[in-house]
Amino acid sequence: MPATTGPRLIAGNANRPLAEAIARQLGVQLDQATISAFSDGEVRVQLHENVRGADVFVVQPTSAPVNDHLMELLIIMDALRRSSVGRITPVIPYFGYARQEKKTAGREPISAKLVANLITVAGAHRVLTLDLTARAIEGFFDIPVDHLRAGPIQAHYLQHQLPVAECAIVAPDEGAVDRASRFQERFGRGSNFAIVLKHRPTPDVTEVRGMIGDVAGRICILVDDIISTGGTLMRAAELLLEHGAREVYAAVTHAVLAPDAPQRLQDSPLAGVIVTDTINIPPDKRFPKLTVLSVAPLLADAIHRIHNDQSVSELYN
Amino acid sequence: MPATTGPRLIAGNANRPLAEAIARQLGVQLDQATISAFSDGEVRVQLHENVRGADVFVVQPTSAPVNDHLMELLIIMDALRRSSVGRITPVIPYFGYARQEKKTAGREPISAKLVANLITVAGAHRVLTLDLTARAIEGFFDIPVDHLRAGPIQAHYLQHQLPVAECAIVAPDEGAVDRASRFQERFGRGSNFAIVLKHRPTPDVTEVRGMIGDVAGRICILVDDIISTGGTLMRAAELLLEHGAREVYAAVTHAVLAPDAPQRLQDSPLAGVIVTDTINIPPDKRFPKLTVLSVAPLLADAIHRIHNDQSVSELYN
Amino acid sequence: MPATTGPRLIAGNANRPLAEAIARQLGVQLDQATISAFSDGEVRVQLHENVRGADVFVVQPTSAPVNDHLMELLIIMDALRRSSVGRITPVIPYFGYARQEKKTAGREPISAKLVANLITVAGAHRVLTLDLTARAIEGFFDIPVDHLRAGPIQAHYLQHQLPVAECAIVAPDEGAVDRASRFQERFGRGSNFAIVLKHRPTPDVTEVRGMIGDVAGRICILVDDIISTGGTLMRAAELLLEHGAREVYAAVTHAVLAPDAPQRLQDSPLAGVIVTDTINIPPDKRFPKLTVLSVAPLLADAIHRIHNDQSVSELYN
Amino acid sequence: MPATTGPRLIAGNANRPLAEAIARQLGVQLDQATISAFSDGEVRVQLHENVRGADVFVVQPTSAPVNDHLMELLIIMDALRRSSVGRITPVIPYFGYARQEKKTAGREPISAKLVANLITVAGAHRVLTLDLTARAIEGFFDIPVDHLRAGPIQAHYLQHQLPVAECAIVAPDEGAVDRASRFQERFGRGSNFAIVLKHRPTPDVTEVRGMIGDVAGRICILVDDIISTGGTLMRAAELLLEHGAREVYAAVTHAVLAPDAPQRLQDSPLAGVIVTDTINIPPDKRFPKLTVLSVAPLLADAIHRIHNDQSVSELYN
Amino acid sequence: MPATTGPRLIAGNANRPLAEAIARQLGVQLDQATISAFSDGEVRVQLHENVRGADVFVVQPTSAPVNDHLMELLIIMDALRRSSVGRITPVIPYFGYARQEKKTAGREPISAKLVANLITVAGAHRVLTLDLTARAIEGFFDIPVDHLRAGPIQAHYLQHQLPVAECAIVAPDEGAVDRASRFQERFGRGSNFAIVLKHRPTPDVTEVRGMIGDVAGRICILVDDIISTGGTLMRAAELLLEHGAREVYAAVTHAVLAPDAPQRLQDSPLAGVIVTDTINIPPDKRFPKLTVLSVAPLLADAIHRIHNDQSVSELYN
Amino acid sequence: MPATTGPRLIAGNANRPLAEAIARQLGVQLDQATISAFSDGEVRVQLHENVRGADVFVVQPTSAPVNDHLMELLIIMDALRRSSVGRITPVIPYFGYARQEKKTAGREPISAKLVANLITVAGAHRVLTLDLTARAIEGFFDIPVDHLRAGPIQAHYLQHQLPVAECAIVAPDEGAVDRASRFQERFGRGSNFAIVLKHRPTPDVTEVRGMIGDVAGRICILVDDIISTGGTLMRAAELLLEHGAREVYAAVTHAVLAPDAPQRLQDSPLAGVIVTDTINIPPDKRFPKLTVLSVAPLLADAIHRIHNDQSVSELYN
Repeated sequence: MPATTGPRLIAGNANRPLAEAIARQLGVQLDQATISAFSDGEVRVQLHENVRGADVFVVQPTSAPVNDHLMELLIIMDALRRSSVGRITPVIPYFGYARQEKKTAGREPISAKLVANLITVAGAHRVLTLDLTARAIEGFFDIPVDHLRAGPIQAHYLQHQLPVAECAIVAPDEGAVDRASRFQERFGRGSNFAIVLKHRPTPDVTEVRGMIGDVAGRICILVDDIISTGGTLMRAAELLLEHGAREVYAAVTHAVLAPDAPQRLQDSPLAGVIVTDTINIPPDKRFPKLTVLSVAPLLADAIHRIHNDQSVSELYN
Repeated sequence: MPATTGPRLIAGNANRPLAEAIARQLGVQLDQATISAFSDGEVRVQLHENVRGADVFVVQPTSAPVNDHLMELLIIMDALRRSSVGRITPVIPYFGYARQEKKTAGREPISAKLVANLITVAGAHRVLTLDLTARAIEGFFDIPVDHLRAGPIQAHYLQHQLPVAECAIVAPDEGAVDRASRFQERFGRGSNFAIVLKHRPTPDVTEVRGMIGDVAGRICILVDDIISTGGTLMRAAELLLEHGAREVYAAVTHAVLAPDAPQRLQDSPLAGVIVTDTINIPPDKRFPKLTVLSVAPLLADAIHRIHNDQSVSELYN
Repeated sequence: MPATTGPRLIAGNANRPLAEAIARQLGVQLDQATISAFSDGEVRVQLHENVRGADVFVVQPTSAPVNDHLMELLIIMDALRRSSVGRITPVIPYFGYARQEKKTAGREPISAKLVANLITVAGAHRVLTLDLTARAIEGFFDIPVDHLRAGPIQAHYLQHQLPVAECAIVAPDEGAVDRASRFQERFGRGSNFAIVLKHRPTPDVTEVRGMIGDVAGRICILVDDIISTGGTLMRAAELLLEHGAREVYAAVTHAVLAPDAPQRLQDSPLAGVIVTDTINIPPDKRFPKLTVLSVAPLLADAIHRIHNDQSVSELYN
Repeated sequence: MPATTGPRLIAGNANRPLAEAIARQLGVQLDQATISAFSDGEVRVQLHENVRGADVFVVQPTSAPVNDHLMELLIIMDALRRSSVGRITPVIPYFGYARQEKKTAGREPISAKLVANLITVAGAHRVLTLDLTARAIEGFFDIPVDHLRAGPIQAHYLQHQLPVAECAIVAPDEGAVDRASRFQERFGRGSNFAIVLKHRPTPDVTEVRGMIGDVAGRICILVDDIISTGGTLMRAAELLLEHGAREVYAAVTHAVLAPDAPQRLQDSPLAGVIVTDTINIPPDKRFPKLTVLSVAPLLADAIHRIHNDQSVSELYN
Repeated sequence: MPATTGPRLIAGNANRPLAEAIARQLGVQLDQATISAFSDGEVRVQLHENVRGADVFVVQPTSAPVNDHLMELLIIMDALRRSSVGRITPVIPYFGYARQEKKTAGREPISAKLVANLITVAGAHRVLTLDLTARAIEGFFDIPVDHLRAGPIQAHYLQHQLPVAECAIVAPDEGAVDRASRFQERFGRGSNFAIVLKHRPTPDVTEVRGMIGDVAGRICILVDDIISTGGTLMRAAELLLEHGAREVYAAVTHAVLAPDAPQRLQDSPLAGVIVTDTINIPPDKRFPKLTVLSVAPLLADAIHRIHNDQSVSELYN
Repeated sequence: MPATTGPRLIAGNANRPLAEAIARQLGVQLDQATISAFSDGEVRVQLHENVRGADVFVVQPTSAPVNDHLMELLIIMDALRRSSVGRITPVIPYFGYARQEKKTAGREPISAKLVANLITVAGAHRVLTLDLTARAIEGFFDIPVDHLRAGPIQAHYLQHQLPVAECAIVAPDEGAVDRASRFQERFGRGSNFAIVLKHRPTPDVTEVRGMIGDVAGRICILVDDIISTGGTLMRAAELLLEHGAREVYAAVTHAVLAPDAPQRLQDSPLAGVIVTDTINIPPDKRFPKLTVLSVAPLLADAIHRIHNDQSVSELYN
């Protein structure tokens, strides 16, 4: 079986600009493929290039509309498998359903595990993903998972924008403490550290109940993995300003961005919101306070290493 | 392990009226469950009643939006499985992706098989479905499949509406011949039989190229499994009228109904369109020429028999 | 793991002449192996050459005696798997049990699916086959299936034997329409097209009930996938001659040939029967009107392409 | 799910008389089913009775023609599985391919394991078998295996025919020592014990090289699991007579009986051959020196216990 | 298949006293079984009672020696499976390897997932466990997991020992916040809440870096899932006393207890250590400050409900 | 995917000296890895070198403490699998639990099969082992098994130590006959052959009941696979000396060696005990009469051949 000569990239419809950016980084072309829908909404996939024996990476965050993007990914993999591909690696920079990774009451699904099973049964040989909400999701798979972090990209960017010694890194709730702590290590130890505390009277309700750490006179950077409605971050920002913070930024990986979130964030006390392009952000969802950093170089580097059997864990931290 | 006392029904959101009609037929209540979506579109499932050891039927045609309805079905089954249910039978009166059951060119998926795999991996113990486009889809599963037919319901209805000896049963294309022939056997041998012939210059283009059989002076009944845009049936109706048909009806199982299909069908030369409620037809898609027959009694009978280990094949023809 | 240098061929006992012809085309030797039976009929397999890491193709149509040939195939694959082979591709030019691909009544097996499962569990990595009765059988596998067609070989041969513009391509029943239509596209659009219609009063009985299309004065070519007793083709030939056909040929892929079929076909009104060598035809089953075209070049080309990760779909049509 | 009321029996074609004898013992009727072959040799199965939820036992030794009988068994199980049966237990009194349970050289199959895999993938929930050549075959399955022994039936019969204290139990080769020893415990400790020793210069050649134990003046009973050509037993008998044995009988479980074996055994120095009916012995294979004991009561007892969740291991010894 | 009449219990050697206590609660006898070791350390299992069709619960925490106890559990399940048991539920009150549920660096195993796979492949139908370190481990299984909590037992006990309004519930590190918060809800809202903060300069080193919340004059209850060396709790207790706590107790579920932990805990500033009997605590590991509460009633209740298909989630909180 | 350049070796803790000897033979370094235990006994694995795409051999006999060594092996494989390794081959020179390969009574496990399943589910692609007690264990796997023999190493050594024509090869019980016979073929046909006969009144008790073959005046070599307490061999030696043997040696593959076995063997009538290093023998278990031959060259040769896709069966005999 003759050697193939490089990684191959196929893009679903979830984030074509990111796939193109990765391709440019790698110096390859995206594979020609028709990935569309029939009139009744069923996904339609046709691959236009021979993939026999090839090492194919399918770039598809499972962002909203999550079910359509997930089925696209599964059907692309089914087409690849039936076409005698060599190896299939879904590249899922944003992993939908990741927040449903445990039962919070009786008789609930563990949807993140179901999705892991679907990805495996559809033919994936390994998975490349980024900033999963819960690390244990890696263990939902028995195939190898390469799990990258976007924090260093954001930390590096902000280091050059802000005076490190006048900053404070802030976890907007208890669940973000680990992420914020790793961020601080990258950003600079001269900064302060603080935590906003939450109270959950019912599974669906969350309230701020206080904070710890000194933020007075500091430029605060709230660190989290997902920004959806932005409510958590905006409430945290208000609290920080009440405690004397000079200015508040948010550094978040996945820009889920509910419909009215852009306007509300633009009008909020936040001075800036730094996200990445794991999820495609169309022009109408962009707003002046938003900065989008690209994970394309990071993903391209990982794809290059995976293809060449080089260590990826060096990219992990 | 104590005996449970009857079949249990859970309805997804695809066709709640049908699920309720089946429940009424069976004299049971639908199980209480929350099947909704989070703000970012991820499906959310919570079952509110104990299902341990129960024999549960999940009513959910995978109609449009097909990917959302399919994921709802899979996630409901995941929740059931993790809740120690006794047996899970998805009831899928309309099976989305059924038309993608073979490769028509190289490097295509076989999406119907992928969907069968997804249903199996999510925990189904058997499947109850109705009027699959291709019978071989039964073989895509290794779990038992009960496959019902709606034809007799329609044949029985039309027998009482139309003079059998003055009718002709017509297959609107080559693929519908078997279905039309079975329909005729139920409807009455005094009727004529005819076929409309097609020509497919490319995989995506279909043209009428002629017809065989005598329809002059006859009331024609076009028999098919799916009506989507209605184009095929309307073109066939025109051809039949050109060949002297007195009047043309269409008897179709699954009312997929593209957005402008109701208006176009109402304005078409078709005298009437007889469908079933396998897919939910909201009021704004109903039109005067449309008649909807219910498959609820048929599905309720099958569920009753499956639950009681009685033969279902008696219902098959 | 060092590269191996070419495809390897092993032949079961079902069609050794075909395997040898393929080997000659590829310029390789068949692997030395003992594939025999113990005195009690149990299959015995011993491979005499090192196959570690090799890309092995096992040539074995599952023709009659179908169960013996199927078990030979499975046991050869078991021996290969336990010998650390690199990749196993069964080459099954005739796929026994393919006609049992759906249930025609309650409580029947889907034997074609069972056989697909057996082939998979015995260790096949992909499958190479030819002219399956039903295309959906591809979906019975989750491993890649390369599905070739013999029609072009026969069309090309007959183009040079007969005046295309004076011919008619005829489907001997409804199920053969698609195959006949594809044949006609290869053979030449100047030819006519016709269909013989069937009637099936019971699952086991089939009667001719008429035909459509103009065959008067034409040289007819009946196109089908399997010839077993020859009854269907002979009855169709008689009907065509009654409708004024000048002469009738049959072009069929798989020469199953029941014991008395050769004599009956020789004595029939058919002018010639053109088959292929997917099934071994021993000298005593050959008769003057029979022409056997070889699929060895086609299979050899496919094996060469599979081994070298080149596109096989170019061979499909 | 309502309770079913008794075990259900289906017979393949391998040993219908045994199946009927078991049914009589259990006081049930064999299920109505058509298990035949199409004209091209493909197995055809149709079940005529509702089996939903039933506890079905399929009686089918995989005796010669072994591949046909094995495929019959697999296809019956496929039909049962697709018919929503409750539990499938193949009853395989003689397990073909059991002697191919290990590799004796490189690049050989382990056909007994392959067959175990085929039986499992076709849908068996547990297996009932009898006198396997190698006990380790039980471990080839992960489903439960009930493994009965026919020795006690034969020992009990011969106890009443022969003077125990004047007998010697003899193992005809090293591999039969364990079986002969268990036989002796049942038959009576007053008997002597002896072993015939073998020499295997090549894998295919076996020679007698001597014996140990005192048989002078004794009535010898050779104990083995399979009699095929009878060569081993006849050579052993000659050796025993040379060593002064008074008379020699053979007690063997499975009467494989090669075509000329009945005549040769009748003409041999053996005084009698006691076998069982695990394999069907047609009238033309029976000969005066042959005694056939039935395992039907033993199998019926085991089926009754399995169906009623009673201990089967009490039947083991 | 006749009904069985009650749950059956088998005890491995890890915690026989707990198994006996559960049996007493359920009013049943432990099944007779020999679960020992051969002279070379290999586990030996023999079941002495018929288990066909039975609903068997295997009580075995995988406490130290963890590998021996895990293999005992797996081999017991293998014996049950091969004995045609109806249903196997391992009862694992302490789940060894649970703390290895994610990769903390490249090239590490996810041992908790491996163990989940081993339990599944050995034949478990569902799992009953208690206070897993990480809830996501539930999603490592695709079989149902019932996951109980011991917190309410401890909260209820301490409510009657201590003046609620003078207490403070304290999380000894960030990872215990959720557990402590649930504990407080059970214990009484009049109590205060506090958190000890940690610093992890390297993966293997953990230091206390401060605390939040008011504990001055309070009786503190440190809440955690595992006590091994006791170092974390003792350091936390010192910190709390420095901050003015009146007295400090520890409420911990799993008493792993390293060899010198009992002495060190007895000598520590902790006023009392309240644990449960999920892990067997032999007399020589007990010390005056230790109180052991039993989870036997809770497990017995869950087993009773599982056996009778009643809701277990009512026991969850 | 670029080629990797050689086999990679990882050593568990069971027999590090053997792993190092194999590495020296192959001219490679053992991979750097931490394979230790946490304070509570849980195995801890960290791989320190990139293994992506590599062909890794894990050297780990599952000798005592068998459960710890088995779990080490499984967890190392889990870490490798999650690190995107190319191929995993456990090298298991001594396969623990191999003697539990069949049920000797009802309701027993088949632990050897369970262990085979565990090894497979943990990610092994093939297995390299040596002198399994029962050859049928090969069939417990569906992955390839290379099964080497140490007999020739011992035969070759003793040929040069002893006068072949004055020796007798002796099987210490019925189960060792095949092994002793193969040994004799290697050692020299001039030697005599003899068998010690056993009696097993109960499954746990074994007594010597006699012997066959002429050993008078001969130097006897007892051949067996495992030496644990040494009781069988010492009793056999006494019997041989009673029958006139001049001197008795034991040639055994696996030196399990119960705690007091070294002293008892040194004090026994055995003149020498020749074993191999499949199991690590620490200095305190070595005794003057013990000779240890290394299987490292044999295993290194097999690893070299497996890595280079060369035939291993040439090494089998």
